[in-house]
Amino acid sequence: MIAIINGPNLNLLGKREPEIYGNETFESFLRSLRDRYPLEPIEYYQSNSEGEIIDHIHRLGYESADCRGIVLNPGGYTHYSIAIADAICAIEIPVVEVHISNIMARETYRHESVTAAGCRGMLTGFGLEGYAMGVDFLLRISRAQVGK
Amino acid sequence: MIAIINGPNLNLLGKREPEIYGNETFESFLRSLRDRYPLEPIEYYQSNSEGEIIDHIHRLGYESADCRGIVLNPGGYTHYSIAIADAICAIEIPVVEVHISNIMARETYRHESVTAAGCRGMLTGFGLEGYAMGVDFLLRISRAQVGK
Amino acid sequence: MIAIINGPNLNLLGKREPEIYGNETFESFLRSLRDRYPLEPIEYYQSNSEGEIIDHIHRLGYESADCRGIVLNPGGYTHYSIAIADAICAIEIPVVEVHISNIMARETYRHESVTAAGCRGMLTGFGLEGYAMGVDFLLRISRAQVGK
Amino acid sequence: MIAIINGPNLNLLGKREPEIYGNETFESFLRSLRDRYPLEPIEYYQSNSEGEIIDHIHRLGYESADCRGIVLNPGGYTHYSIAIADAICAIEIPVVEVHISNIMARETYRHESVTAAGCRGMLTGFGLEGYAMGVDFLLRISRAQVGK
Amino acid sequence: MIAIINGPNLNLLGKREPEIYGNETFESFLRSLRDRYPLEPIEYYQSNSEGEIIDHIHRLGYESADCRGIVLNPGGYTHYSIAIADAICAIEIPVVEVHISNIMARETYRHESVTAAGCRGMLTGFGLEGYAMGVDFLLRISRAQVGK
Amino acid sequence: MIAIINGPNLNLLGKREPEIYGNETFESFLRSLRDRYPLEPIEYYQSNSEGEIIDHIHRLGYESADCRGIVLNPGGYTHYSIAIADAICAIEIPVVEVHISNIMARETYRHESVTAAGCRGMLTGFGLEGYAMGVDFLLRISRAQVGK
Amino acid sequence: MIAIINGPNLNLLGKREPEIYGNETFESFLRSLRDRYPLEPIEYYQSNSEGEIIDHIHRLGYESADCRGIVLNPGGYTHYSIAIADAICAIEIPVVEVHISNIMARETYRHESVTAAGCRGMLTGFGLEGYAMGVDFLLRISRAQVGK
Amino acid sequence: MIAIINGPNLNLLGKREPEIYGNETFESFLRSLRDRYPLEPIEYYQSNSEGEIIDHIHRLGYESADCRGIVLNPGGYTHYSIAIADAICAIEIPVVEVHISNIMARETYRHESVTAAGCRGMLTGFGLEGYAMGVDFLLRISRAQVGK
Amino acid sequence: MIAIINGPNLNLLGKREPEIYGNETFESFLRSLRDRYPLEPIEYYQSNSEGEIIDHIHRLGYESADCRGIVLNPGGYTHYSIAIADAICAIEIPVVEVHISNIMARETYRHESVTAAGCRGMLTGFGLEGYAMGVDFLLRISRAQVGK
Amino acid sequence: MIAIINGPNLNLLGKREPEIYGNETFESFLRSLRDRYPLEPIEYYQSNSEGEIIDHIHRLGYESADCRGIVLNPGGYTHYSIAIADAICAIEIPVVEVHISNIMARETYRHESVTAAGCRGMLTGFGLEGYAMGVDFLLRISRAQVGK
Amino acid sequence: MIAIINGPNLNLLGKREPEIYGNETFESFLRSLRDRYPLEPIEYYQSNSEGEIIDHIHRLGYESADCRGIVLNPGGYTHYSIAIADAICAIEIPVVEVHISNIMARETYRHESVTAAGCRGMLTGFGLEGYAMGVDFLLRISRAQVGK
Amino acid sequence: MIAIINGPNLNLLGKREPEIYGNETFESFLRSLRDRYPLEPIEYYQSNSEGEIIDHIHRLGYESADCRGIVLNPGGYTHYSIAIADAICAIEIPVVEVHISNIMARETYRHESVTAAGCRGMLTGFGLEGYAMGVDFLLRISRAQVGK
Repeated sequence: MIAIINGPNLNLLGKREPEIYGNETFESFLRSLRDRYPLEPIEYYQSNSEGEIIDHIHRLGYESADCRGIVLNPGGYTHYSIAIADAICAIEIPVVEVHISNIMARETYRHESVTAAGCRGMLTGFGLEGYAMGVDFLLRISRAQVGK
Repeated sequence: MIAIINGPNLNLLGKREPEIYGNETFESFLRSLRDRYPLEPIEYYQSNSEGEIIDHIHRLGYESADCRGIVLNPGGYTHYSIAIADAICAIEIPVVEVHISNIMARETYRHESVTAAGCRGMLTGFGLEGYAMGVDFLLRISRAQVGK
Repeated sequence: MIAIINGPNLNLLGKREPEIYGNETFESFLRSLRDRYPLEPIEYYQSNSEGEIIDHIHRLGYESADCRGIVLNPGGYTHYSIAIADAICAIEIPVVEVHISNIMARETYRHESVTAAGCRGMLTGFGLEGYAMGVDFLLRISRAQVGK
Repeated sequence: MIAIINGPNLNLLGKREPEIYGNETFESFLRSLRDRYPLEPIEYYQSNSEGEIIDHIHRLGYESADCRGIVLNPGGYTHYSIAIADAICAIEIPVVEVHISNIMARETYRHESVTAAGCRGMLTGFGLEGYAMGVDFLLRISRAQVGK
Repeated sequence: MIAIINGPNLNLLGKREPEIYGNETFESFLRSLRDRYPLEPIEYYQSNSEGEIIDHIHRLGYESADCRGIVLNPGGYTHYSIAIADAICAIEIPVVEVHISNIMARETYRHESVTAAGCRGMLTGFGLEGYAMGVDFLLRISRAQVGK
Repeated sequence: MIAIINGPNLNLLGKREPEIYGNETFESFLRSLRDRYPLEPIEYYQSNSEGEIIDHIHRLGYESADCRGIVLNPGGYTHYSIAIADAICAIEIPVVEVHISNIMARETYRHESVTAAGCRGMLTGFGLEGYAMGVDFLLRISRAQVGK
Repeated sequence: MIAIINGPNLNLLGKREPEIYGNETFESFLRSLRDRYPLEPIEYYQSNSEGEIIDHIHRLGYESADCRGIVLNPGGYTHYSIAIADAICAIEIPVVEVHISNIMARETYRHESVTAAGCRGMLTGFGLEGYAMGVDFLLRISRAQVGK
Repeated sequence: MIAIINGPNLNLLGKREPEIYGNETFESFLRSLRDRYPLEPIEYYQSNSEGEIIDHIHRLGYESADCRGIVLNPGGYTHYSIAIADAICAIEIPVVEVHISNIMARETYRHESVTAAGCRGMLTGFGLEGYAMGVDFLLRISRAQVGK
Repeated sequence: MIAIINGPNLNLLGKREPEIYGNETFESFLRSLRDRYPLEPIEYYQSNSEGEIIDHIHRLGYESADCRGIVLNPGGYTHYSIAIADAICAIEIPVVEVHISNIMARETYRHESVTAAGCRGMLTGFGLEGYAMGVDFLLRISRAQVGK
Repeated sequence: MIAIINGPNLNLLGKREPEIYGNETFESFLRSLRDRYPLEPIEYYQSNSEGEIIDHIHRLGYESADCRGIVLNPGGYTHYSIAIADAICAIEIPVVEVHISNIMARETYRHESVTAAGCRGMLTGFGLEGYAMGVDFLLRISRAQVGK
Repeated sequence: MIAIINGPNLNLLGKREPEIYGNETFESFLRSLRDRYPLEPIEYYQSNSEGEIIDHIHRLGYESADCRGIVLNPGGYTHYSIAIADAICAIEIPVVEVHISNIMARETYRHESVTAAGCRGMLTGFGLEGYAMGVDFLLRISRAQVGK
Repeated sequence: MIAIINGPNLNLLGKREPEIYGNETFESFLRSLRDRYPLEPIEYYQSNSEGEIIDHIHRLGYESADCRGIVLNPGGYTHYSIAIADAICAIEIPVVEVHISNIMARETYRHESVTAAGCRGMLTGFGLEGYAMGVDFLLRISRAQVGK
């Protein structure tokens, strides 16, 4: 199983500022994503709360038997949540950080990610496709490890 | 309808540090405020949680039929919550930011507001009266638009 | 009597950059403002000179018998004039700082106000209506004190 | 009664990064701590949510009859939560801030504590024993006041 | 007509620190400049006062019928006068900023120009000849527009 | 055709600091990458010279008939080359920036990318697989445009 | 003759914030100062305007026949007026900068003096007596030079 | 044996600024401390000299046979003495840093401790009791090691 | 002879981002420039390479018999190339730095020029005409020296 | 009695860098100073050691019966010795800080004085005469207090 | 064999700014250096190009059979070339960084060396002799290793 | 005679953190160094006290008849002792600063040396051999001067 976690305001995708974030809803994207990976369950979780996101990372890290990786978009928390960054470091499941828009091309205070340091990697600017790229990468390294 | 949202620790108004915040409770102030605007319902919401404040902003922005504006005091979140700032930008209802004390006359780290940029305006230092000034302004521009 | 002081370039309101400052002249606004407060004289002063603004603040603070408050828009001086800030602290009449546009939503160097610390409060982003909100607040606290 | 509050990720003690945080769980430590203070109830609360931590501080400060002090480890929130810092200032019960590892010997962004300023004191680097040192100090000053 | 405005201390040219500013007076230079442009009146204004410089920019921008451009040396105000910078943005006449010495080769605090951003261009280090280069450029673009 | 450009020191992959960059050579990786995309030619260019990288970006942008996208790893230039950043902005072909290691988990001066702002997106920390993810994304958007 | 120049708000001495600036007026102090130096005329000038202060420094530097030194308190301009600093450098008469309160013991932004660099010396914190100390020093060095 | 080292100005405890540091002398406190630990000799050393403090740390680290730990209050040196910090790192005896007042609640330049990084832990704000807490901790870990 | 050196990306003038740089090619402009100075050969050199620009500056400074001045647009290198700045200081031929757009009106990181300090002067924002202004100035000072 | 304390390197006055510090020795100056104040003993102390300077300040503050004030030149320690600054705050005798050269006209790192904040006042740039000005001021306020 | 690499502008030694760099050419110095080490070939390479310097470091690190060490003067690249710094880290041959003038005594921006971190050591201010000191050190450690 | 001065903690060489500083004692190294220079006496001084180091520099500079140079390792004082830096500038004997480890490869706060600016040169990272390199250089320039 692959888990996707979306942080604050990402429940509004498709409705909110479409010139930045596009106008496809995440639900619609998620259906097409699941179609692309019919053999791999893709769990989805969204919360606007920093604490609930940490709770969910803990659940995946310590209670989920088959989670092979997490694709995480921490939204606005990306830039200050040392608490989420600590949660990422506290689990062993690989995490890939995703941003829909290119944070390096936006306001200066969005250039730094405090959460990315504990992740396996980070990708930014690829639109919703970025989530698929993250899922793909996590499956690839998971298979590589199993193959060893 | 006008919505008022109070952030962290503002549930303690009247009890907490009266030399800074005065000793009237918000509930008592709210009664007098509703008396001043008998024709316009004033909804009130308080939470100490960043995520719940975002949830409530979303609800007002996407589920409320008649919300004409939001008066928001983000409390301590004012100075770092990019997540709340993003929520303000994600809705179309006008938001007015209010601070009871004059944040420009307090510690340096309280001078910057990251949430104010997405608001229509910000007012600081007018005590509880600041909320009334915000309500007043929102009703005025709402009427102006209807009048067009 | 309530005094309004406008700082540099505010004599050009209505002519200058209307996309930021609107296209009503201050004179026309002032007429409507005086209509709203028929019982209270509203004195108006504008200068592009930092020194003359300080002179005028002194006059109001030490020579005017009935000034109940000052609504001040220091224009560009807002961000560096320690001299005007000192003048505000040197008088006892309450001062409310007003900005037509939302300074928190403009260039970073406009976010800090060195003059606001000595004021009773500051409001920004409410257009010309901000002056009325300032006048209103000053009358309210003046009456409250008289009533005591 | 003494209250202990643990912030984000501290529910994972004993499981998470043992080279930094040791491998005793907090539950096991808490049992031995209660054994050391058989006469004084020690209440324990943990949450990953900034808002819930503030709620709990309020409850202790305004609704608890016999709370003699709080030992607080704000975890990652230590370095940016002005909202928790405000909550600490809003109550009169003395608060002692505790960090298991020595935050001055870790990444630079962990050197500053925004929450410590409102506390009675702060201790860092003493492992789980730090909580006992905090409890001990709070009992000592509580007794001193009673003795007066 | 082309207008030249000199800011603080530039009335002392020829007398003041000749190793930096040369020893020709501005009056003598102005005569030779007018000789080079016999067909185009060159108006000259100098003031040590920030407010008077703003007043004069306004006069040229809103009251002068035939001003084709302004050559402005804001002197020491270059580095902090947001008020003059706002005045430049408030008019439509093109402005060229000139500095006699090379400000990039002097103290660090002289490297930044807050007034140049609103100007058409800025030139620094060309001595008094810089004024002629500015006049020349303004006449050239003025003619180009007329020729259209 | 998709073009891959590698910047300074990336010719040493497989030999240089394998604990950071792995021990596969780029040549060997490139063979496997071409096998994955048998229908799409993949051009490869490496240079240690900032100027030659700019030259090559220009060639692709203005002289290549069929280049559908560029995968660029600017190596050490990432963090200061405004000249390469300008080159990326000067062409219309989409560029994806790739870093083998996670630059957000390395020295602070590697957190900022001055070149990423002009790119379509950036990905960091996915090892050599990151190049494949970049190629994949570029082909996908290229096909999407053709399909329109 | 010795000249004393007082900058903004210093006309209010004795009336303004006596806990910082004392409650003697400058006029009364000046009388006693002139009594202490019966043989040396002491000229006094005060202005709230940066430009007028520069004008006066020029007058003393280029038009006054017998000015032996200037005692200057630039008030709030101390901390940003590069224009006054340039004026001080533009004359040859020695200038002594005086501050009534100890600027090193006040807000951080009052610690730096941009005007002091061009002065002979600066003294701060000696109350009104500081002006006498400045006058004294200027007379001493003037006599020393005459004596040579 | 446990060693206590007090840095500059701590010889004045009880006499100096009692509103910050209390009015018990250190000598009197030391007597009561020795009474609490009758079995463990407590050596005391105070110096105002950075070099002598380093000398003493060396003596304890390399010449003392039975020193089980050091409780160190570096006073003002806390914030800049890299030399003392290096001395702490150069010995193997555990060091606990103590501050009487809460340095996080004082001037910003007192928030950072350069000496604490090499210590086992740091505690601040517990008054003189902080020394006892440090002694206690050192004895506890010393016994723990002996018990192994 | 006058030499013009264009740095990185300036070979794309007329093709690249015409809204910033205009749509005339440099070649076409150069022809018209040579027409304006029929008696003075104008040499032209462009390179995207920092090293080649330094090589060329050396050639002009030490091997060219008749070079009377250099007009240099260092492009993106302006803001970080200490190496080019050193090359400018290493020759005696006067250099004028030119920027087509007004760098003071663009991104903050473009406000500082590290290369301008060693130049005779710098001009920015005058479009391609800036090169002509530079050539003109260099010929004027060259003639002035010959005339001496 | 008035005490003068000179910090590091001031024992070399008259020998060391005379272009900055003049070529009179302090001993010779001290003789003339004592001649000017025949009725008031002037004690002199010099040390290159931060700790010894603190020791001496303590001696004067707590053991000297008749010390009416201290004139202190902390030399290089001025800019970083929080320990000396704390010592000044720990005594009640008034302290005047003196610098021979004008520290505001020297390297940037000499502009800030950490020791001056606790002093009565500071004077800088008056050469050796500055010590006399300090002595004079201290006698004056001492007499004023006695006169009360 | 020992390799010496000189970066930008060092080909001009003896011609360029002799008051900083002396007036011996590097060629003449190199002859005398080779005379001092008749048994050890000394290879010399100079380039103004960052990329070519990296190429040469690679050649020495991966293609040269007998290179025992590199003496590198990166010239102006010292202060920003992360790319050269990466190249130094990518080879195993020891590198010694040399600067002719004392970079710590020049402009602030020359104090930091980004390239030195990966070197064995750095020496600055010893004139051309610094190269000999570097060669000497490299031969000494090379012999020490052979002797093991 | 050549003098070597070692600052704080360098008396512990061979005992302290051998992974950074090696495990040879300085005494043993000094014997071998004296063997290498049998004709030149090498004086050695070590102190942990900033003041004593200054005292010793003065003694060498003003009282020693035959000191031809000083090799100084200021240890931790390197990074903040303006007082030692001033002492170096106050003498005429050339000083070479030496660091055993490469300070540019350690913590950021060790990159800057405030003491090096007044030295002839600085070398860092060459282990104990660095002292020999310093001695060597000082003898060489001393002989060169004698030979003139």
